[in-house]
Amino acid sequence: MPKQAIRTAVKVDLNTPAWEQPQLHNRWHPDIPFSCKVQPGEVVNVECLDWTGGQIGNNDSADDIKYCDLSRIHYLSGPIEVEGAEPGDVLVVEIQDVQPLPEQPWGYCAIFDKNNGGGFLDSHYPNAAKAIWDFEGIFCSSRHIPGVRFPGLIHPGIMGCMPSQELLDTWNEREKELVGYHASIGTDRVVANLPLEKFTHAGSADSDSAAKVAKEGARTIPPREHGGNCDIKNLSRGSKSYLPVYVKGAGLSIGDLHFSQGDGEISFCGAIEMAGVITIKCEIIKNGVKDMCMKNPMYIPGPVEPHYGPSRYLTFEGLSVDETGKQHYLDVNVAYKQTCLQFIEYFKKFGYSGEQLYILLSCAPVQGHIAAIVDIPNACTTLGVPVDIFEFECLPKEGGFEKIITSDCAFTSGE
Amino acid sequence: MPKQAIRTAVKVDLNTPAWEQPQLHNRWHPDIPFSCKVQPGEVVNVECLDWTGGQIGNNDSADDIKYCDLSRIHYLSGPIEVEGAEPGDVLVVEIQDVQPLPEQPWGYCAIFDKNNGGGFLDSHYPNAAKAIWDFEGIFCSSRHIPGVRFPGLIHPGIMGCMPSQELLDTWNEREKELVGYHASIGTDRVVANLPLEKFTHAGSADSDSAAKVAKEGARTIPPREHGGNCDIKNLSRGSKSYLPVYVKGAGLSIGDLHFSQGDGEISFCGAIEMAGVITIKCEIIKNGVKDMCMKNPMYIPGPVEPHYGPSRYLTFEGLSVDETGKQHYLDVNVAYKQTCLQFIEYFKKFGYSGEQLYILLSCAPVQGHIAAIVDIPNACTTLGVPVDIFEFECLPKEGGFEKIITSDCAFTSGE
Amino acid sequence: MPKQAIRTAVKVDLNTPAWEQPQLHNRWHPDIPFSCKVQPGEVVNVECLDWTGGQIGNNDSADDIKYCDLSRIHYLSGPIEVEGAEPGDVLVVEIQDVQPLPEQPWGYCAIFDKNNGGGFLDSHYPNAAKAIWDFEGIFCSSRHIPGVRFPGLIHPGIMGCMPSQELLDTWNEREKELVGYHASIGTDRVVANLPLEKFTHAGSADSDSAAKVAKEGARTIPPREHGGNCDIKNLSRGSKSYLPVYVKGAGLSIGDLHFSQGDGEISFCGAIEMAGVITIKCEIIKNGVKDMCMKNPMYIPGPVEPHYGPSRYLTFEGLSVDETGKQHYLDVNVAYKQTCLQFIEYFKKFGYSGEQLYILLSCAPVQGHIAAIVDIPNACTTLGVPVDIFEFECLPKEGGFEKIITSDCAFTSGE
Amino acid sequence: MPKQAIRTAVKVDLNTPAWEQPQLHNRWHPDIPFSCKVQPGEVVNVECLDWTGGQIGNNDSADDIKYCDLSRIHYLSGPIEVEGAEPGDVLVVEIQDVQPLPEQPWGYCAIFDKNNGGGFLDSHYPNAAKAIWDFEGIFCSSRHIPGVRFPGLIHPGIMGCMPSQELLDTWNEREKELVGYHASIGTDRVVANLPLEKFTHAGSADSDSAAKVAKEGARTIPPREHGGNCDIKNLSRGSKSYLPVYVKGAGLSIGDLHFSQGDGEISFCGAIEMAGVITIKCEIIKNGVKDMCMKNPMYIPGPVEPHYGPSRYLTFEGLSVDETGKQHYLDVNVAYKQTCLQFIEYFKKFGYSGEQLYILLSCAPVQGHIAAIVDIPNACTTLGVPVDIFEFECLPKEGGFEKIITSDCAFTSGE
Repeated sequence: MPKQAIRTAVKVDLNTPAWEQPQLHNRWHPDIPFSCKVQPGEVVNVECLDWTGGQIGNNDSADDIKYCDLSRIHYLSGPIEVEGAEPGDVLVVEIQDVQPLPEQPWGYCAIFDKNNGGGFLDSHYPNAAKAIWDFEGIFCSSRHIPGVRFPGLIHPGIMGCMPSQELLDTWNEREKELVGYHASIGTDRVVANLPLEKFTHAGSADSDSAAKVAKEGARTIPPREHGGNCDIKNLSRGSKSYLPVYVKGAGLSIGDLHFSQGDGEISFCGAIEMAGVITIKCEIIKNGVKDMCMKNPMYIPGPVEPHYGPSRYLTFEGLSVDETGKQHYLDVNVAYKQTCLQFIEYFKKFGYSGEQLYILLSCAPVQGHIAAIVDIPNACTTLGVPVDIFEFECLPKEGGFEKIITSDCAFTSGE
Repeated sequence: MPKQAIRTAVKVDLNTPAWEQPQLHNRWHPDIPFSCKVQPGEVVNVECLDWTGGQIGNNDSADDIKYCDLSRIHYLSGPIEVEGAEPGDVLVVEIQDVQPLPEQPWGYCAIFDKNNGGGFLDSHYPNAAKAIWDFEGIFCSSRHIPGVRFPGLIHPGIMGCMPSQELLDTWNEREKELVGYHASIGTDRVVANLPLEKFTHAGSADSDSAAKVAKEGARTIPPREHGGNCDIKNLSRGSKSYLPVYVKGAGLSIGDLHFSQGDGEISFCGAIEMAGVITIKCEIIKNGVKDMCMKNPMYIPGPVEPHYGPSRYLTFEGLSVDETGKQHYLDVNVAYKQTCLQFIEYFKKFGYSGEQLYILLSCAPVQGHIAAIVDIPNACTTLGVPVDIFEFECLPKEGGFEKIITSDCAFTSGE
Repeated sequence: MPKQAIRTAVKVDLNTPAWEQPQLHNRWHPDIPFSCKVQPGEVVNVECLDWTGGQIGNNDSADDIKYCDLSRIHYLSGPIEVEGAEPGDVLVVEIQDVQPLPEQPWGYCAIFDKNNGGGFLDSHYPNAAKAIWDFEGIFCSSRHIPGVRFPGLIHPGIMGCMPSQELLDTWNEREKELVGYHASIGTDRVVANLPLEKFTHAGSADSDSAAKVAKEGARTIPPREHGGNCDIKNLSRGSKSYLPVYVKGAGLSIGDLHFSQGDGEISFCGAIEMAGVITIKCEIIKNGVKDMCMKNPMYIPGPVEPHYGPSRYLTFEGLSVDETGKQHYLDVNVAYKQTCLQFIEYFKKFGYSGEQLYILLSCAPVQGHIAAIVDIPNACTTLGVPVDIFEFECLPKEGGFEKIITSDCAFTSGE
Repeated sequence: MPKQAIRTAVKVDLNTPAWEQPQLHNRWHPDIPFSCKVQPGEVVNVECLDWTGGQIGNNDSADDIKYCDLSRIHYLSGPIEVEGAEPGDVLVVEIQDVQPLPEQPWGYCAIFDKNNGGGFLDSHYPNAAKAIWDFEGIFCSSRHIPGVRFPGLIHPGIMGCMPSQELLDTWNEREKELVGYHASIGTDRVVANLPLEKFTHAGSADSDSAAKVAKEGARTIPPREHGGNCDIKNLSRGSKSYLPVYVKGAGLSIGDLHFSQGDGEISFCGAIEMAGVITIKCEIIKNGVKDMCMKNPMYIPGPVEPHYGPSRYLTFEGLSVDETGKQHYLDVNVAYKQTCLQFIEYFKKFGYSGEQLYILLSCAPVQGHIAAIVDIPNACTTLGVPVDIFEFECLPKEGGFEKIITSDCAFTSGE
């Protein structure tokens, strides 16, 4: 029988508030009802809103970023029931394509305010800022960060099966413990987002279930052993993910589509965020969790990643000595922060602002490696930046560089 | 004029103790005399002993690892004076080739005892173990880890210019402070190796200088802002490194050659360690440190790295929840440890011991990425393992795997 | 201003005969009126029918191939006027994406009958045969050639600017001369397709122009110096083509979309033919033809080609000694034929029919190289086949191979 | 048992005439005695002279090229007996490394005079010319072709097993027939080199055998079904070749080492020719010829080829319309010639001479593809040139290019 057009298992509506769309949800909980059903081996399209459900506009102000309500996010499409999947199985999700919605050929990348989400370098760049990216087929460019253009390594930031009640309880416990510990030592920082009733969207759940979900439902910000918000830039076209199944029917949810992201997604809203459609095929490996000793997901990248030769990566190094000169013990976080700052200082010479570079580093396909982690006391990390994303020559040379960038990214109106 | 054979700027002798060879040294100090001189643009060979200066044998016991004296290492070749280099310049070192010594076509990779060096997973694998690797041209294989064979991404683990006295003082201060702090809170672990007179080898220094070097000379274990033991696996054939210069003549030293290493070099002696010869060409970028805002080195990888398609990387994930289930706050170290353990558990199914896999993970060309570092409270890291290094089919499949590996790596005689 | 959805410059209708759609044409002639206009730098979508304008069905018979009317083809979308382009300029066409039409997620690849088009191996495989390929995002597979699956290197087979009258006359003259010569020596074969009034489709031309186009219009089968049917498999997503401009407004036409093709497109209808939409951006290099000494087009491939490591290509060789053992003098065509036949014989061992392999070789992303062309009397060509397109292990091994393929491609009802 | 240094199975002496070294030979014949023996699985080094046995000097004149005696070549190392190999088996040769001789870190690439060897473009460039290339580790550069530098894809041009008497007779017959036919139609050109007693070197053969070899021995210029002078640029480090065995012991011979070569090796002495050492391991697939339907060799490239991203290849096209405007019927040779000429005209704009570019095209790692071979009457070929081999920016741009190259390659003294 001739093949029909691919079925769309989840549709979204750009003109209806995300929280009124029952095929979406923004918490992880086994009581969120399935929004649709697919067969193993069936190819389907799944449409997704951007992670904020449309809170961010294509304009030249970062006000919407500054006041973005993080209790609303992430709006995920699903949960999708996969016929035959049972706890202990492994769900194999092949991503066959990801595309922006044709009517919305743009995305955004932003620095969140230190007091609203923050980011990896928020002690250096505490204020909200934003860049809009326009899509031209596989390419993107930004009026807010001139001089760069690159093909997207397009992917979902979030993919995961619904947790069982038991797993959910584990999550809630361990995160509560962390929050408690940090409160006890007087940490200032938000270290985890515990369940929050406000703005919980439990999909098509009835009011009893919805109340339970609101009370217990795990927030979507962190990645967890089911996958979730893993933000792995290589889960792109052609990749295969192996996800543990915890409930009958699996309950696969997907969202937070990214046109491109760098390793670390360092500015938090650090990918090029977009609404779009993802084409997937699910298959089941029975008893795979035990047979393959799986605790966390595994994956195999797809065969069509953008590729530059290895000699086209300008690579920065950083160590676990912080910017005040203080020595830390094998701390990869400190080392990676130094590595990122090195990149920023280098490219400032061309005229970019720190904010532009912080955003660029978050969303361009940079490679962040753990180079050495045993040579006490210094961890060493590296950051490889493909020089071909720049439209000008940027390799090291004698005599320094000329300032060629003269405009900046979008800031808040207060600044 | 016809080109002559390449000059060997530093020669080593496999039959003389390392500490008796004046062209070697094992501390960083500006008073170590230059061992030779090169011109900018000149191509030279530099021979190197293995990092231990020959303490480890090609045999089936890990006793030499267990009792290896870490105060002796690393034996470096140099310092090489580069004509015209001055503080503030950047030394560009192009690595044109790296080869094992023809008379010693083998190397080793080892797990150090928890009480003598340790390693990233020493709480799981506390005992010394060893694997010998045989070289066949670009390939290596090991009688102690059957079933794998791969081309080396051959490189020096250590490369750096001599620190100025001022920089050396900074190092010593900040590391002393770290040691002091950990002592004050009663940490058990060795967190840094401070200057140690015992077994200091100051090259051809006279006795006064040698005494000063012994007293103040920075140990060679950590990478620092001059480069040093950065253990970056991609500094291979064809790469270019940009190193800050701190003293007149630069004083470039090189050593710790690796036939192959994985990101992290997790078992500490985690690369395939070897004696060999490296071919380099040095050039100078005047005032480069300031012009390029350099604090740490930069590099560009070479064009001939082994390459597998992206779809040939089986990739594991890990989060900052440790093996006891405890939640850590965005801790990349915890996440990477979990990622490594996932790899080990998966491949144990084929019959390998944990020690074999710990060693393999250290020395095979695995890609360790910082995937996401802002999704509180979980950092997410990935570990990509090229499946083509295995001589058997190892991709996920239904029904589990067959045990096919029946022999083990080398252990100490006491076990 | 926020970016709108991409404008569709040429639309096609799958339910109207191709020859009734004025935005299409099937001859090259300067008098075919422009079907639309674009600005330099503007991004537009161009929809295309498959090359036959819908003559081939998704079914299990090759009858439609056997009786396909080649005087109808190729239905091209355009000509597109590019504002400002003048003779002597170079038109730069960036292909930003190519996609199948969502409502028709399949394509076909076929062997044409020796008496109707033929193909490179028609003396070995003279009869029509067909394979239908189903698309799943970036992947394709065929019920007629089981055991293979691969990502498409999706591209247009035809892209070119309208010839000037002068260039058109040159084409017609030289091709007429060739036909005349072959007639004079009694060649049996059709060696070129001269202008043919029957089934000429001159787009929206009025009747006088249409008559002129019918009489003089160059057929679309061969590639020529304007580009045309160059069938270069790498003109895929992200590529840039540099095309000479011969008439004011350039008159760019595009068609013959392929989901995938191998070097040589050896079975003539050898790509996976499809209807689809291509996203392009045109720019102009003034006086580029002279400044860059261009006679034929140039191009730069895109950055997202499927990539396998080099060691994943099983590579066959062939020489200019034909299958009867006759020695030819440096004849690349003979050598490449032998190379193709070597591939076919090797894979027949797995149970495939010759026709299945002939089709596969035409449409899979195989690399056909001219290895050596000066070692008299033997030319040497190679054919690299990515082993990862096969779902079974196909590398050379002792003991021969098992037959695992048991079904065949589609043939004509007469067979 | 610890591994020893790799055994050198064949040694050469740069200071003794090639024809006096019994471990070399320059004809293919089953009566040439084995020069040494290896075991399956054994790793050995094989040293090789350059193809001419040292006739060409590192100087600035092409006189030695003009008067090079082609009846002397190629001096091959071997034949090597492989224990256990029998007719019908397949010999698997893994190339583990190839290196220049340390005492001779240079090679050459040349245009042969039209009347002494000629080349693919000898009607355009009939006179001898030469370029010397200096090696720096994996890189090479030439004082005769400034502005380029690239890593070598180092390989042997010749590798093959000794033919049986029957196969040898077949070769001689078919080549004699070709020569006879061309003589009968009055062709001017040398179309094949038949056996020639003069300067035959039969290795260590006694006088009777040597006489037979001289009379019947196949010349080494063409590739044939045993492999031979296949000049495939990708038979580099890590590759595996599958060669048919025709005589007991196989009789593997190797030579004609190239530091680098482009597809086609178009200037005949078109690779960077050098003396060197190759490290190999032989294994046997019993009855492989029949089991895998082998007629010609197969191979799998190695994993460490230089790699540039696909977008770093500037690609030229050519058709089977020759430079006089004459239309040829699907003739790949004509098309490839046009493609090469396009490259030459483009780069002449930078100041290079045609001879420099003809040489460069022969020896740089360019990709020559058979793009389309069925679109009557035009064959289409492409030539991909990695732009990263140039030290200046060479991509198409508006405004034309500046002449920056001011010196030329070496010519003969008569010019």
